[in-house]
Amino acid sequence: MTKRRPTALHEKDGVSPPETTSQKAAKNIKVNRGKIPSVDDFVTHILKGDITFLSRAITLIESTNVKHQEKANKILEQCLPFAHNAIRIGITGVPGVGKSTFIEAFGKHLTQKGKKVAVLAVDPSSSINKGSVLGDKTRMEELVTDKNAFIRPSPSGTSLGGVAQKTKESIILCEAAGFDTIIIETVGVGQSETAVHSMVDFFLLLKLFGAGDELQGIKRGIIEMADAIVINKADGENVKKAKIAKTEFNRALHLYPPKESGWQPKVLIASALQNTGIDKIHDLIQEYIALAQESGYFDKKRNDQNTHWLISTINQQLKDAFFQNKKIEKPLEEEIKKLKSGTTTPFLSAKKLMNLKDE
Amino acid sequence: MTKRRPTALHEKDGVSPPETTSQKAAKNIKVNRGKIPSVDDFVTHILKGDITFLSRAITLIESTNVKHQEKANKILEQCLPFAHNAIRIGITGVPGVGKSTFIEAFGKHLTQKGKKVAVLAVDPSSSINKGSVLGDKTRMEELVTDKNAFIRPSPSGTSLGGVAQKTKESIILCEAAGFDTIIIETVGVGQSETAVHSMVDFFLLLKLFGAGDELQGIKRGIIEMADAIVINKADGENVKKAKIAKTEFNRALHLYPPKESGWQPKVLIASALQNTGIDKIHDLIQEYIALAQESGYFDKKRNDQNTHWLISTINQQLKDAFFQNKKIEKPLEEEIKKLKSGTTTPFLSAKKLMNLKDE
Repeated sequence: MTKRRPTALHEKDGVSPPETTSQKAAKNIKVNRGKIPSVDDFVTHILKGDITFLSRAITLIESTNVKHQEKANKILEQCLPFAHNAIRIGITGVPGVGKSTFIEAFGKHLTQKGKKVAVLAVDPSSSINKGSVLGDKTRMEELVTDKNAFIRPSPSGTSLGGVAQKTKESIILCEAAGFDTIIIETVGVGQSETAVHSMVDFFLLLKLFGAGDELQGIKRGIIEMADAIVINKADGENVKKAKIAKTEFNRALHLYPPKESGWQPKVLIASALQNTGIDKIHDLIQEYIALAQESGYFDKKRNDQNTHWLISTINQQLKDAFFQNKKIEKPLEEEIKKLKSGTTTPFLSAKKLMNLKDE
Repeated sequence: MTKRRPTALHEKDGVSPPETTSQKAAKNIKVNRGKIPSVDDFVTHILKGDITFLSRAITLIESTNVKHQEKANKILEQCLPFAHNAIRIGITGVPGVGKSTFIEAFGKHLTQKGKKVAVLAVDPSSSINKGSVLGDKTRMEELVTDKNAFIRPSPSGTSLGGVAQKTKESIILCEAAGFDTIIIETVGVGQSETAVHSMVDFFLLLKLFGAGDELQGIKRGIIEMADAIVINKADGENVKKAKIAKTEFNRALHLYPPKESGWQPKVLIASALQNTGIDKIHDLIQEYIALAQESGYFDKKRNDQNTHWLISTINQQLKDAFFQNKKIEKPLEEEIKKLKSGTTTPFLSAKKLMNLKDE
């Protein structure tokens, strides 16, 4: 029994809703929405650059449904021979640094040069959308309507490993769909930079000028991962300050040992808002790629990255199987308590727990 | 049949060797050398500060013999309640920075203040003795004869994890034996700093002055781990250069975010050779310890370290069990080949290998 309340919302009680769509059309839409194309259909359309199919295939990758994942794996396998032809660029920076504006300006610069740009994200917190750029596509108004750009927010998930895996697989599909530049965005507040660094060819750190504490909030070690630092918002009266920051960062960078690539990271200044300095960043990346390809470092890095992902995926699965084992849960808690009270060593505890697993 | 050769070395063939020791005494020595004291004997003597027993117990820890390890574990368990009362200091720096001279000067400063100092090392390459300070004890001539000092070279082993575990267990025994300052030395050329950093309260990086390339050879990230940087060899004409380096390092350190401890790492200059600046380093460490103990960070860090070692030991053992599994060896090689040729993804390969394990 419905309790009736005297509000205007119930004025039409008993009146059937208007038929804005025919019953048949509505059913048709529902059926098609539920029907997943075949693997061959997916592959054919992705290879033709069909964004709708690309998007749906990525949804399969991101799905937690086992059947979806199996299908995604088959699509991936068939797309693999057509992937690996893009340049992968990682972009990070703390919230407020202007990542969305920068990616929009940089992405448009690329599409104007005839490039096809896919923008993906790795943001393990994206399920609750803590300031993820791509969670709010409206921030990239122009790029989102550019037919040579494809923007996809971070897959959701609480585990960085899971989010990163999905993004890495999405790269393959974007490449197979003909995107020649893949931008991977990540928020500069967690461990996600390391994950992104392990899947890109070039890693770019966005910074703001500011005295002394300009590295606040940036995870230790990120500076060392950067192939370039771009000091953003260098416009108007800020240009002078940005130039000072550039000098300081250059000095700091020289304190680091040379990178395995032989590349000396550069500091550039730019204003994404005023679209200045963007071309120089693109030139720099091209310079790096040319050098790395010539020296063979480019391929070496990709091979190393793949082996890294293989090993770390296995390690993660081994850990998950152990620590999610219900036989382990309670004893582990007890051992950690004993460690705190100083009545065991980490190694004695580990031995005990490993024995439990095999019992 | 012995083949005789006409050399002077064989002039005494047929003549029995002189009895420099009685047969009985020789036998006695051999028997005792082979006989391992009981666990109770070990513990009683270690708690009394008996260096010989401490040393032999560490040898048991380092042994690959399972029975020795079981005995070592029992000794450890009984010594545990008497451990944890020392300050643990990690010292690193590239070969040539003067680590041995520094540790000698610093160790002597401590024993003169009435401290009991144990010096251990973590050097995974020590089996072939690549410039390990403690591999060559003669470099610390004075400290080695100091009755309040105990010096022990790095356990041998090719795996860093194994070497680190042994050293971490040796710390427990040294503490139970009454050593109140434990110095852990490591060579600044590999990943061993991270391991040492995870077992000490204070981490000290030794550096030389020098323009521009002073960080050459130091692993990325070590600067960030340091609670203090000491610029060594600041004597004679070098004092001025050392002071310039100090300013530069201070500036670089300010670019890093604050540490969890709230401690701002300091840069000091010293000359271990001329014994200058050593007292200030000791003062600084004491200042740090007092602050960390007051804030509760000291205990928190130790708890975190222990949990870290527990988890990482388990992870290591899980990995070892997987990658040393003969069923995995060949297929792993094949998958890595396929990765190189771009015909699989790390995740498809991982899935395949994980399935193999469970077959």
